[in-house]
Amino acid sequence: MGALSSILWAFWYILPAYFANASPVVLGGGRPIDGGRNWRDGRRILGDGKTWRGFFGGVAAGTLVGVIQYFITPGFYGSLKTALLLAFLLSFGALVGDLVGSFIKRRLNLPRGYPAVGLDQLGFLISALAFAYPVKTVSSGQMLALLILTPLIHWSANYFAYKMGWKSVPW
Amino acid sequence: MGALSSILWAFWYILPAYFANASPVVLGGGRPIDGGRNWRDGRRILGDGKTWRGFFGGVAAGTLVGVIQYFITPGFYGSLKTALLLAFLLSFGALVGDLVGSFIKRRLNLPRGYPAVGLDQLGFLISALAFAYPVKTVSSGQMLALLILTPLIHWSANYFAYKMGWKSVPW
Repeated sequence: MGALSSILWAFWYILPAYFANASPVVLGGGRPIDGGRNWRDGRRILGDGKTWRGFFGGVAAGTLVGVIQYFITPGFYGSLKTALLLAFLLSFGALVGDLVGSFIKRRLNLPRGYPAVGLDQLGFLISALAFAYPVKTVSSGQMLALLILTPLIHWSANYFAYKMGWKSVPW
Repeated sequence: MGALSSILWAFWYILPAYFANASPVVLGGGRPIDGGRNWRDGRRILGDGKTWRGFFGGVAAGTLVGVIQYFITPGFYGSLKTALLLAFLLSFGALVGDLVGSFIKRRLNLPRGYPAVGLDQLGFLISALAFAYPVKTVSSGQMLALLILTPLIHWSANYFAYKMGWKSVPW
């Protein structure tokens, strides 16, 4: 397998996590997961940006992407059950990583939407890779490619979403 | 190889990068790498925190750690030449990642020493893993363990350095 092909397969692998991470921009809103409650430091646990609709919508969107991927490349997954479980774990992991990131940002008193450079781009990715690891993983070279290229894609995508008026800030 | 043993070997592998990343706290100071010059946005290219002495001192310290590691576990490296090259690349990669991180922070107008959560803890690690990859790498499971545990160790170490009076801020 050539280097380029190997990197493309790595992106195919991680695709549900990307969709899960991006979808709250579209599917978000509704009741916040922390119910408006504060942590013992007097600041919000997660903030208004993390909602149940965004979370479950993201998991559903990412899992659906995995089902579509299975019908395009069944050999990559082996079975629909594996594809479904993998896509669910990648999506769930991505969104749990996102929540952990928000929790850390609130504890550091960073305002909602403020960029935590690195955490925002890599937290969801590392969490998705870790949750999915027991079912199916990628090589360490593929993992490095995802770790290096994801922040670049993340910044480009956010800048695009900002230009399209979907986000109020370009990060 | 058990999971714990596997994780311990991953830390043994990455040790030169840790030393290279931490040593500027002790070996730092001197002339800044950017020579005091500004980028086209009117802000410093890297800032006073990144110095030639910190950079070369860090590469030297990390490479020396690799030589010591070779004499403790020669079988892990195969040859002194491999251990030396690996430690050099891990250290050089860690410090290049640190410089890239500073460059990004200056562009985002984050003040020197301001925490970029994620970038500070993972930038040096991912860069070190990428530079060293052609010589010797770890498994994807080991890589995930390093990605998850390094931020926790980084925070603990910085808090310790702050408590010891080596750093003026606890991050």
